[in-house]
Amino acid sequence: MAALSVQMGALAGSGVTLRSSVYGSKLSGRKIQGISASRIASRPRAVRMGLTESGPSVAVVGVTGAVGQEFLAVLSERNFPYSKLKLLASKRSAGKHISFEGRDYEIEELTKESFEGIDISLFSAGGSISKEYGPLAAEMGSIVVDNSSAFRMVDGVPLIVPEVNADAMAHIKLSNKKGAIIANPNCSTIICLMAATPLHRHAKVKRMVVSTYQAASGAGAAAMAELEQQTREVLDGQEPTCNIFNRQYAFNLFSHNSAVTGNGYNEEEMKLVKETRKIWNDPEVLVTATCIRVPVMRAHAESINLQFERELDENTAREILSKAEGVVVVDDRSGNNFPTPLEVSSKDDVAVGRIRKDISQKGNFGLDIFVCGDQIRKGAALNAVQIAEKLL
Amino acid sequence: MAALSVQMGALAGSGVTLRSSVYGSKLSGRKIQGISASRIASRPRAVRMGLTESGPSVAVVGVTGAVGQEFLAVLSERNFPYSKLKLLASKRSAGKHISFEGRDYEIEELTKESFEGIDISLFSAGGSISKEYGPLAAEMGSIVVDNSSAFRMVDGVPLIVPEVNADAMAHIKLSNKKGAIIANPNCSTIICLMAATPLHRHAKVKRMVVSTYQAASGAGAAAMAELEQQTREVLDGQEPTCNIFNRQYAFNLFSHNSAVTGNGYNEEEMKLVKETRKIWNDPEVLVTATCIRVPVMRAHAESINLQFERELDENTAREILSKAEGVVVVDDRSGNNFPTPLEVSSKDDVAVGRIRKDISQKGNFGLDIFVCGDQIRKGAALNAVQIAEKLL
Repeated sequence: MAALSVQMGALAGSGVTLRSSVYGSKLSGRKIQGISASRIASRPRAVRMGLTESGPSVAVVGVTGAVGQEFLAVLSERNFPYSKLKLLASKRSAGKHISFEGRDYEIEELTKESFEGIDISLFSAGGSISKEYGPLAAEMGSIVVDNSSAFRMVDGVPLIVPEVNADAMAHIKLSNKKGAIIANPNCSTIICLMAATPLHRHAKVKRMVVSTYQAASGAGAAAMAELEQQTREVLDGQEPTCNIFNRQYAFNLFSHNSAVTGNGYNEEEMKLVKETRKIWNDPEVLVTATCIRVPVMRAHAESINLQFERELDENTAREILSKAEGVVVVDDRSGNNFPTPLEVSSKDDVAVGRIRKDISQKGNFGLDIFVCGDQIRKGAALNAVQIAEKLL
Repeated sequence: MAALSVQMGALAGSGVTLRSSVYGSKLSGRKIQGISASRIASRPRAVRMGLTESGPSVAVVGVTGAVGQEFLAVLSERNFPYSKLKLLASKRSAGKHISFEGRDYEIEELTKESFEGIDISLFSAGGSISKEYGPLAAEMGSIVVDNSSAFRMVDGVPLIVPEVNADAMAHIKLSNKKGAIIANPNCSTIICLMAATPLHRHAKVKRMVVSTYQAASGAGAAAMAELEQQTREVLDGQEPTCNIFNRQYAFNLFSHNSAVTGNGYNEEEMKLVKETRKIWNDPEVLVTATCIRVPVMRAHAESINLQFERELDENTAREILSKAEGVVVVDDRSGNNFPTPLEVSSKDDVAVGRIRKDISQKGNFGLDIFVCGDQIRKGAALNAVQIAEKLL
């Protein structure tokens, strides 16, 4: 196969350019607003695929959003093979141009005809767009990897974290020449289960108490921009602009902005509860969660308390996690060095630390851990592209 | 008694002036660095005490620190009666002047002779200063209210949250004319127990899982200034200055900076575990905690999962909390309005919300709550002054 891919070029466009220290370690030159995604691929591979006749045709739906942009970055970094690339967005963005792997693409307006001849559709344009166009794309023979919550809990739709339950999508392949929908779990669920699953496999999680520290990116690129704008305003002694959230976010934190459901849990918390049961295929697992938005840009943190059915001491847990795919252990007690959202920003791996026996539980049946993962990457775009890779 | 107290005047001094949106709602005109504390008293009282011949003589040790400054603000707001006020600090600050309630005070260097004739000594100058001078002051007949961790776990030293266990210091009174040491609990413990205790009294807490979201102020005024400086630097594309913490704090969060102990818990977490047992006088209560520093200025948040011995439904819990002294319930599910650190900043009350039945526990034996409290105020200075009030 010919080595056709080239690095994604930086794109011209307005928007504030920020240092990596705001947005994460590998995002130098990245723009917040507008269409831009210069980056250095973290994992150069021997065989470069990219644009290749034998690859599937791929559509990216919602390409101008934070996750849409990351889809492109991840596809390029991982040399995902494609014979054709269609970039779709709302009418507002149609006609704009994006340079990807050295080629110029015009963004097309999403319509019912968009999925003609498209093998794989990566959706990240919100739940209502997914509900309207996802089934349509699948009917037209496309395999939809949907980043919204629209189909996650629908029976028959696999809800996949590739490192956790790839088997649940084993029956869906491009070679079947048949459309399908596969759902990408919620970011908090993905990041939590990347760390909890290897331990669950060993000792079976009975109950899990999760408190999250969630980044602005989960509410989209505009929320990231608002956090930055508010922070500048507050430091300058001005009233903070509150368009995305109805309160000051800079130097503050608040209960997750999703709607509170009848049982007092917000939707974000219920995703953690329900999606965990589906992904682990364990309707009995007990989960409670408190989801909080913190003034961090693009990576989530989670404090997770685990109760196990079988014994699991902290050293065994650390060993298990250090061998787990997609997980990196950062657990230096003497140096007080543990995972931080900034250090996992733009990284693929979920970082786990503070691994310790829960002293509030008798014996070795409980652990506390602290987990950080990039919300846009493993929490969304990377996980979706990994799902797409399983289709090949 | 004569109405002698006047409002604390704003003090001249260098330092960056910041809006209330950085430091909290009632701190307009407050300086971060330098000695300054203009504020509007939140609770004007009919009888004004302040400087009065019949009051005790009071020393404030560590008056230039964040908590020391708040001691003065709280003493003034609450019209704490005093016949004499001695402001003590290190040699470095000695000779500087502070205007308090319309009078000029010269800061004196803390020495072994400082406590001659002092009835009440409010200490907040770190553990080593407390260890050296606390017992000395007590020997000289002063009742020490110590904000450090030096004596908290010492047998015979009451560890007091006035709303929770004032009875444990009932034997210590100014009228005894006898020195003593009373310890102020750690900020995270105070804020947690303000909300958990009313529920504990009703249904007995068996186990508690706490995850904290802790403000910069817990590490002192210099840490608050560093967070502000770093944020400016990062937004300006500069490397963040890391003097207080060894990593970027702006737009980031990290495991609490206290040392990690042998069992993998850091000291901050072990304070929550041990102090809760002592304050509740219940060596059996099970507590686990994960303490995280978030980029917020002066109020802590805590996500608390509770397991009870007896049943307690969420409506009863809300009713109990709404009647609890020093607690305000902010629990508007339809408006998605819950406690935030910014809104409790410079407030006396601890705010509690997200009160809901824990769906991971059978029956009504579990609750999740979310708590915010001002770290400098109820977490330190206010609690100490409330202790001092009990001595009168």
